[in-house]
Amino acid sequence: MESNRFTLGIVEKNLAGGALLSGEQRTLLERLLHGDPRALARAISLVENDAPQAAAILSACFPHTGGALRIGITGAPGAGKSTLVDRLARQFLAAERKVGVVAVDPTSPFTGGAILGDRIRFQERHNDPDFYARSMATRGSLGGLALATADVALLIEASGKDVLLIETVGVGQDEIEIARLADITLVVLVPGMGDDVQSLKAGVMEIADIFVVNKSDRDGADRVEQEIRALQSLAQVHGDWTPPVVRTIATTGEGIERLAASIAEMETWLRCENRLADRRAEHWQRRLDAMVRAELMRRARRNGLSEEELRRHAARIASGGEDPWQLVSQLAKEVLKEK
Amino acid sequence: MESNRFTLGIVEKNLAGGALLSGEQRTLLERLLHGDPRALARAISLVENDAPQAAAILSACFPHTGGALRIGITGAPGAGKSTLVDRLARQFLAAERKVGVVAVDPTSPFTGGAILGDRIRFQERHNDPDFYARSMATRGSLGGLALATADVALLIEASGKDVLLIETVGVGQDEIEIARLADITLVVLVPGMGDDVQSLKAGVMEIADIFVVNKSDRDGADRVEQEIRALQSLAQVHGDWTPPVVRTIATTGEGIERLAASIAEMETWLRCENRLADRRAEHWQRRLDAMVRAELMRRARRNGLSEEELRRHAARIASGGEDPWQLVSQLAKEVLKEK
Repeated sequence: MESNRFTLGIVEKNLAGGALLSGEQRTLLERLLHGDPRALARAISLVENDAPQAAAILSACFPHTGGALRIGITGAPGAGKSTLVDRLARQFLAAERKVGVVAVDPTSPFTGGAILGDRIRFQERHNDPDFYARSMATRGSLGGLALATADVALLIEASGKDVLLIETVGVGQDEIEIARLADITLVVLVPGMGDDVQSLKAGVMEIADIFVVNKSDRDGADRVEQEIRALQSLAQVHGDWTPPVVRTIATTGEGIERLAASIAEMETWLRCENRLADRRAEHWQRRLDAMVRAELMRRARRNGLSEEELRRHAARIASGGEDPWQLVSQLAKEVLKEK
Repeated sequence: MESNRFTLGIVEKNLAGGALLSGEQRTLLERLLHGDPRALARAISLVENDAPQAAAILSACFPHTGGALRIGITGAPGAGKSTLVDRLARQFLAAERKVGVVAVDPTSPFTGGAILGDRIRFQERHNDPDFYARSMATRGSLGGLALATADVALLIEASGKDVLLIETVGVGQDEIEIARLADITLVVLVPGMGDDVQSLKAGVMEIADIFVVNKSDRDGADRVEQEIRALQSLAQVHGDWTPPVVRTIATTGEGIERLAASIAEMETWLRCENRLADRRAEHWQRRLDAMVRAELMRRARRNGLSEEELRRHAARIASGGEDPWQLVSQLAKEVLKEK
């Protein structure tokens, strides 16, 4: 695939956000675009921490992206997503595609930590220059988790990866938003988790491009597949793409080749008739909305909406001495007035 | 408790957001403040849908709030939260406190729907004018789920409730934010769910005021309690309040009186030395931040940042023809300039 698509030389332009890149940061960027994992890790940290140069770094990386295939993997906790991602990564590496992984590890007390731990072991297994994995344990300070994940995925792609695997625990709206960042979304189900029927409700039919029934040696795999088929007969959500159901046992690798074949088939379908571009345009629309929000808030902060000021107002509101809705209306006006 | 604290007569003032209340809406508000459940339901819908009068309605209700005790109940799916909330509601009703329930039902495909179903049955059981329950199945269009929940809780309180029970599935950051809206947060754990240790990680120690070990007749209740105690000895997060561990079997009602006693004890503690006011001021600070964001975005939309315009830009970005970071910077400037 287009792994050598990046031509270096960062364009001199009026970079977004106003913050220009220092000589050191330019060097960082050149190293990143050459695939240096340490430069990539450093750039990700700058972006995650919403550093002043974050927008300029992302902007400089943007022209070096767009070629990679983005695969989202979502499913309930315990569905075996990490092992599945590991297997898929090996499969793509064997096919000489460079692989990046973003594992979103919500800072939830109920699920937090598990993915991160797995991921560290995972990274250790792959001591491979064509592979890079990063866990996201925190949301960006202003833009939310989905936006931060999108930014990190962009940086990893700019470092020369052909396939991005974006893994999330599909339990919250944020995670669904993240799954929607992908070109192809795999929804991972497991027989006998007691939530088979429920887990097929609502949003899943909309976001699933491929259903994976993992741990398919367990009792109930037939039933899960039947339920998916029954729901598919009711909904027609993807035009002429009918999401296939692929059975896997990630721990042994069974079914992974079939899964990779399904992904390849969908990739071919997406690259026809402008489908991939249309899908990405939809994604960018949501992302732009989130970016504008975050940027407005950044500017509000600069225009005097300080934490300290909010704290003073909050204390007055808590004692009933100030009306928050009137206050917010007034604050917004002030922020908008002062340029 | 202060259930007759509302004096009617909605103040004539320059209401937030500019939208004045119509005669019909004033009538709605008066009925809401008198505890009419249908008026309350209607007002909640207006606020959930971000109607133009939403801010004015909330603003008018605000002076009639602050007296109720807010109890957050969070825990993993299957922990028995709904049954526990049901039992607690009965306990408070028996003590002649008026009870409101907000059950947050994330629109996640993996958990969605379960709470809502329970809640409808729940509402049917209580045909009681002192009781009101509402499920939140959607997030507000602009402000996020936590903000929408806070708004709904405020309306329910203004309708004359003394105790608010705010129930969330504690699996995502949003839900943790919601738990943080409460004066007292119960974290519900269950023995033998396989995630005992993990579920005590990270954020839980910070948000838990009372630990509830539900289904405590199961094997492993001792171990869960020991693990909580062990973690408590490491962390000192609540000053001089040590979160108690209360064992319950919600299905039979066992332990509910002890739980109510623990809540009462914490309420007494909170109402000393300004602790409740301090805690609420902290909550308001986070909420103000979210409100300002939502309001800036509302104004940006009014100032020409239309969906249509975003769609056009998104298509150009997806094809690599426009730099999103430069665009966002420019859009923010335009929005801020035009008042």
